[in-house]
Amino acid sequence: MANITTRPVTKLGIVGAGSVGTSLAYAAIIRDAAREIAIYDIDAVRAEAEGLDLAHGTQFTGASTVTGGGRIEALAGSDVIVITAGARQKPGQTRLELAGVNVDIIQKLMAQLMEQAPDAVYIVVTNPCDVLTVAAQKASGLPWNRIFCSGTVLDTSRLRLLLAREAHVLMTSVHATIIGEHGDSEFPVWSNASIGPVPIRDWKISGRQVFTQDYLDALTDDVVNAAYQVIEGKGATNYAIGLAGVRIVEAVLEAQNAVLPVSAIMHGQYGINGVALSLPSIVGINGVYEMLQMPLDEGETKKLQDSAETLQNTLAKLGV
Amino acid sequence: MANITTRPVTKLGIVGAGSVGTSLAYAAIIRDAAREIAIYDIDAVRAEAEGLDLAHGTQFTGASTVTGGGRIEALAGSDVIVITAGARQKPGQTRLELAGVNVDIIQKLMAQLMEQAPDAVYIVVTNPCDVLTVAAQKASGLPWNRIFCSGTVLDTSRLRLLLAREAHVLMTSVHATIIGEHGDSEFPVWSNASIGPVPIRDWKISGRQVFTQDYLDALTDDVVNAAYQVIEGKGATNYAIGLAGVRIVEAVLEAQNAVLPVSAIMHGQYGINGVALSLPSIVGINGVYEMLQMPLDEGETKKLQDSAETLQNTLAKLGV
Amino acid sequence: MANITTRPVTKLGIVGAGSVGTSLAYAAIIRDAAREIAIYDIDAVRAEAEGLDLAHGTQFTGASTVTGGGRIEALAGSDVIVITAGARQKPGQTRLELAGVNVDIIQKLMAQLMEQAPDAVYIVVTNPCDVLTVAAQKASGLPWNRIFCSGTVLDTSRLRLLLAREAHVLMTSVHATIIGEHGDSEFPVWSNASIGPVPIRDWKISGRQVFTQDYLDALTDDVVNAAYQVIEGKGATNYAIGLAGVRIVEAVLEAQNAVLPVSAIMHGQYGINGVALSLPSIVGINGVYEMLQMPLDEGETKKLQDSAETLQNTLAKLGV
Amino acid sequence: MANITTRPVTKLGIVGAGSVGTSLAYAAIIRDAAREIAIYDIDAVRAEAEGLDLAHGTQFTGASTVTGGGRIEALAGSDVIVITAGARQKPGQTRLELAGVNVDIIQKLMAQLMEQAPDAVYIVVTNPCDVLTVAAQKASGLPWNRIFCSGTVLDTSRLRLLLAREAHVLMTSVHATIIGEHGDSEFPVWSNASIGPVPIRDWKISGRQVFTQDYLDALTDDVVNAAYQVIEGKGATNYAIGLAGVRIVEAVLEAQNAVLPVSAIMHGQYGINGVALSLPSIVGINGVYEMLQMPLDEGETKKLQDSAETLQNTLAKLGV
Ligand SMILES: NC(=O)c1ccc[n+]([C@@H]2O[C@H](COP(=O)([O-])OP(=O)(O)OC[C@H]3O[C@@H](n4cnc5c(N)ncnc54)[C@H](O)[C@@H]3O)[C@@H](O)[C@H]2O)c1
Ligand SMILES: NC(=O)c1ccc[n+]([C@@H]2O[C@H](COP(=O)([O-])OP(=O)(O)OC[C@H]3O[C@@H](n4cnc5c(N)ncnc54)[C@H](O)[C@@H]3O)[C@@H](O)[C@H]2O)c1
Ligand SMILES: NC(=O)c1ccc[n+]([C@@H]2O[C@H](COP(=O)([O-])OP(=O)(O)OC[C@H]3O[C@@H](n4cnc5c(N)ncnc54)[C@H](O)[C@@H]3O)[C@@H](O)[C@H]2O)c1
Ligand SMILES: NC(=O)c1ccc[n+]([C@@H]2O[C@H](COP(=O)([O-])OP(=O)(O)OC[C@H]3O[C@@H](n4cnc5c(N)ncnc54)[C@H](O)[C@@H]3O)[C@@H](O)[C@H]2O)c1
Repeated sequence: MANITTRPVTKLGIVGAGSVGTSLAYAAIIRDAAREIAIYDIDAVRAEAEGLDLAHGTQFTGASTVTGGGRIEALAGSDVIVITAGARQKPGQTRLELAGVNVDIIQKLMAQLMEQAPDAVYIVVTNPCDVLTVAAQKASGLPWNRIFCSGTVLDTSRLRLLLAREAHVLMTSVHATIIGEHGDSEFPVWSNASIGPVPIRDWKISGRQVFTQDYLDALTDDVVNAAYQVIEGKGATNYAIGLAGVRIVEAVLEAQNAVLPVSAIMHGQYGINGVALSLPSIVGINGVYEMLQMPLDEGETKKLQDSAETLQNTLAKLGV
Repeated sequence: MANITTRPVTKLGIVGAGSVGTSLAYAAIIRDAAREIAIYDIDAVRAEAEGLDLAHGTQFTGASTVTGGGRIEALAGSDVIVITAGARQKPGQTRLELAGVNVDIIQKLMAQLMEQAPDAVYIVVTNPCDVLTVAAQKASGLPWNRIFCSGTVLDTSRLRLLLAREAHVLMTSVHATIIGEHGDSEFPVWSNASIGPVPIRDWKISGRQVFTQDYLDALTDDVVNAAYQVIEGKGATNYAIGLAGVRIVEAVLEAQNAVLPVSAIMHGQYGINGVALSLPSIVGINGVYEMLQMPLDEGETKKLQDSAETLQNTLAKLGV
Repeated sequence: MANITTRPVTKLGIVGAGSVGTSLAYAAIIRDAAREIAIYDIDAVRAEAEGLDLAHGTQFTGASTVTGGGRIEALAGSDVIVITAGARQKPGQTRLELAGVNVDIIQKLMAQLMEQAPDAVYIVVTNPCDVLTVAAQKASGLPWNRIFCSGTVLDTSRLRLLLAREAHVLMTSVHATIIGEHGDSEFPVWSNASIGPVPIRDWKISGRQVFTQDYLDALTDDVVNAAYQVIEGKGATNYAIGLAGVRIVEAVLEAQNAVLPVSAIMHGQYGINGVALSLPSIVGINGVYEMLQMPLDEGETKKLQDSAETLQNTLAKLGV
Repeated sequence: MANITTRPVTKLGIVGAGSVGTSLAYAAIIRDAAREIAIYDIDAVRAEAEGLDLAHGTQFTGASTVTGGGRIEALAGSDVIVITAGARQKPGQTRLELAGVNVDIIQKLMAQLMEQAPDAVYIVVTNPCDVLTVAAQKASGLPWNRIFCSGTVLDTSRLRLLLAREAHVLMTSVHATIIGEHGDSEFPVWSNASIGPVPIRDWKISGRQVFTQDYLDALTDDVVNAAYQVIEGKGATNYAIGLAGVRIVEAVLEAQNAVLPVSAIMHGQYGINGVALSLPSIVGINGVYEMLQMPLDEGETKKLQDSAETLQNTLAKLGV
């Protein structure tokens, strides 16, 4: 067929063929989130094997194709790139030391990635993801909108699961969001949470208030501890973050302008600047359009600013 | 709400929270293949962690719920049960010895499972799956239709991937099937294979025959070796089998009567009896309705009978 | 295959093969909302033709099957029945007179339907749907939970479309609900509306408040008039209500417990009794579990009570 | 967000807001087949109303947006354009006269469309679609690959429905295709038809051949008459063709290279040139890549050539 311009198809690049990167690819092919998926890992053998295993499943899915390998050039032309590459915690290594290693990795990666896909939207998943987002933005010079991390999208889904189970309603009928650091200083915005249109604190079963302050406090602990529970039990968390990542990818590739609590570098919201924190944000084809300012009560505003300070300190310690 | 009969919802039970069982559960929640998914493993801690990780992702999927744990009672009321539980090969252990261990496991399991879900359709995935299907049928006394294994559904998808890539067409436009043992004696039925409606041997690109006999022979080797490649590179295969398994589950739960190359105990097809081998079969709400007899050329019939003999020998050695 | 209990598959019955009933069936097969769909209409010829046209499309969808015809027995065994049967407004006929005709139709229908599907959940779509819900409940003796109407689910989707377009966000990121009568006295609960987590009145673009009271008032008019616009332009409304109806059907068949503004007979909420009005309600496998009481401001409570009075008067006039 | 290139999203243009055009749009939003859908009709009022009704349903679907109206400029930038515009048969008007009117319409339309979307792939649905494809190609000067019609995709789905019902298998497990004219001279290629991998003439139920020659002949008549049945019963056919059209659109927009029996201008296949006839063809992002030559028996080849002659005559009579 001579001389006909080929319209480009959507392409998702994934850096890291570990448990997170491959679960994300699996969710992406099943949901047909992108027409082409390329996975890159410095461990070429693993990446090829994972790419093959995933591709073998595509008879049962739509038109998505997937490959894995050790050549970063395979990511060229990606519309979105999700970064899941990272080092594993070594015995004796502190979390801060691990963070330093991952900062190094992402800085080098971004330089290489800018050559392959300068126009892509970048989504960081590797931890500590808020910190790495700042490092990656600086290393790449990308506008703040085009590089952000999955932030508390995952933590929020954990929160909603617990609320939905207790209220016996569908998860999408639960409205509640965790904001701040993807880490210990994060918190749910209870002042804004509801089941359907009913404020969470007004939710009653047989006339009895279900979500008392004590209950909400315990539930907050449960959520923050959930990742630890999973990691203890299975050595990693991968399935939920895979789906959370694909959800964000879809918001970009389908130009959805969906409101999702991702984390991008703040520029004045609640008086915070220069750190990346999660806030409900509009995510569309060019990345983050806007990080929304929702009403917070005094305690919540304070917590958010504390979260910012925590992150500011970490950035300083790591010299980012 | 007093006194209203609750209509039962679809329930999928999974035995084994290993890499195959959890990938299958992941694909199932993403595709909304069953309303309730319960995973059971003797390793309760792992199963709970996996169940939690999977459940955390359900904000991004439909109404499916999922739990994991160490109580087999959680499988009660399942409409379909997929068995992925098995031992890992120990150093020095032969494949036959491993098979013996898994025969033991499945025999004990079936006795327990019959108490929880006597009316379920059972799908075996644990290897050697053809052998275990016979063992499980005998241990349970289930009719042959209600217990079968994923057989060459996976192998067939590997075949179609290679053919589709070479012919540059969508995988669902490729019609070709691997039959026989899920293992080394399996083979593609080339006499019946086509791309769209074009017999595979007639497929031409720029006037040149693409799929010569040499090409087809090489490709057969590639397919049979694909599993080894994946296992060498990543230590296991899980994603493709996860999707293949869910595809079969959907055929059952949606009463599809889909034609899929699963393996059930044969009863006279091509003169074969008593062993489980894969043939294109009609799979619906009660399991396998019929194993179809497609025309085979002489060489193919011979290969199928050899495959049956291989399995017969294994069954004898294992005392099944 | 001898002697194996066949597990029942999901079945959706539709009464009325007009433009609404068939659009609903079309959306249902495309979304695989039920395994079997049966359409019944007194106009058997039309129903058969529609059933055939719909069935011809099922090659491109999942496993759903569909048939149409003039025998009400075809609805036997339905899990959900959607009623779209109704008379067309005759020249000179007032809306109240038309309502009277439809009350008659539904009363007779319910008697017949109770024989075919006494355990089904019933969803009324025929207008005036709030009125017909009361009539149908009385004629059938069904518990209030098992018979309700699509209410303001459709009107709410019209509202959210306008808000989403103005705010440039995905529709599912808009939270706003219309409650009350499915008709002129309905109203949006602005006090509870938000874009993502931002209260609607706080939504700003470039620092400017977008949704001023004037804007919201105009938009309310637009929504209430949308149905008229569509009917004037194309003679009927069918596509949006088709999807709205399927959405409710899915909540039931998938046991979702989704919060949707359907209309069921009230029993004390906001002091209202005996009329059917739309409130955000939990919809699941047995129908409506609960109609939720969300906080309303004084004006809104007043409007709801006025809406109830309007309906009470209509019921009285029609002798329901 | 300054200075960031916006990647274009997929756009589907539909000409004609009649029953076919709007059903196609409905199926497209439900399946999320394109991000933007624009419908154009000379009857602006109808098109706006239909666009509004469709848009009202999008709360329940994905990110697809839809609009309707009377300005052809709304189609600018479409990746695919489906043409469903046409005149209705007037009393006393012969089919040939109607064809002449539609040739006129499409010739004028193509001139206008070339200004709006010169790079789109064009799919003709208006009847007689084979004839109009030739007229439209000539009027536009488009390469043959970029303008084709839905051909026997619909007729084939009717065939498969009947076969699937009789064989009690899932429709996608039926392989059979109707080729030739989308009209009375079309015919199924029985020599190549199968249920799963079983040749249709070998299909047995309880040892008895199901699809005897008499049965197949009767079934062929049933299929050719199905459209008439539907039109008689409901005045038009729209739902199945809507899904068939969307299926083709997806093959293009998702770069699927799916094999579908569309009709494009032939260039030597089976010795036929210059007329558009349906053959299984590879459909992808640039339209039709190749019309496949499947083996036909003598009778089938003869029928295809007769079909070509029929069309050649019609083209001659219409001066195309
Ligand atoms: N943000 C979240 O919500 C969230 C959730 C779960 C996991 N995570 C994080 O995701 C990361 C990955 O987790 P995992 O379980 O997949 O780890 P993993 O160890 O299984 O995989 C990491 C992969 O990265 C590869 N890699 C390392 N350096 C690389 C480089 N320079 N270029 C390319 N590839 C490189 C490794 O070879 C390895 O395959 C971890 O940092 C983890 O903490 C984040
Ligand atoms: N049929 C196929 O096409 C196919 C493809 C891939 C893998 N497999 C087979 O699937 C099986 C599982 O593979 P995997 O990678 O998930 O292994 P895995 O080791 O990750 O998981 C197996 C799980 O089974 C559990 N288990 C063992 N005995 C049990 C018992 N009695 N009751 C309950 N749980 C029990 C273990 O605790 C473990 O969690 C293997 O036999 C593998 O060969 C088959
Ligand atoms: N609730 C809503 O949000 C909503 C939205 C749109 C339309 N509607 C209502 O839906 C109804 C149907 O609209 P439509 O456009 O499909 O009308 P229509 O005239 O196209 O179809 C109505 C069908 O009902 C059939 N019918 C009449 N009496 C019957 C009986 N006793 N048993 C079985 N079938 C019978 C007719 O033969 C006809 O085919 C109308 O009342 C309309 O106002 C409601
Ligand atoms: N190919 C197939 O398999 C197949 C199947 C069904 C229907 N059809 C054909 O599809 C066509 C449409 O059928 P329908 O039921 O939607 O008809 P319809 O009368 O409902 O709609 C046709 C629409 O085209 C519009 N139109 C006419 N001229 C136009 C122009 N110049 N520009 C823009 N719009 C114009 C009309 O205003 C009308 O709204 C018919 O020709 C029918 O035969 C084809």
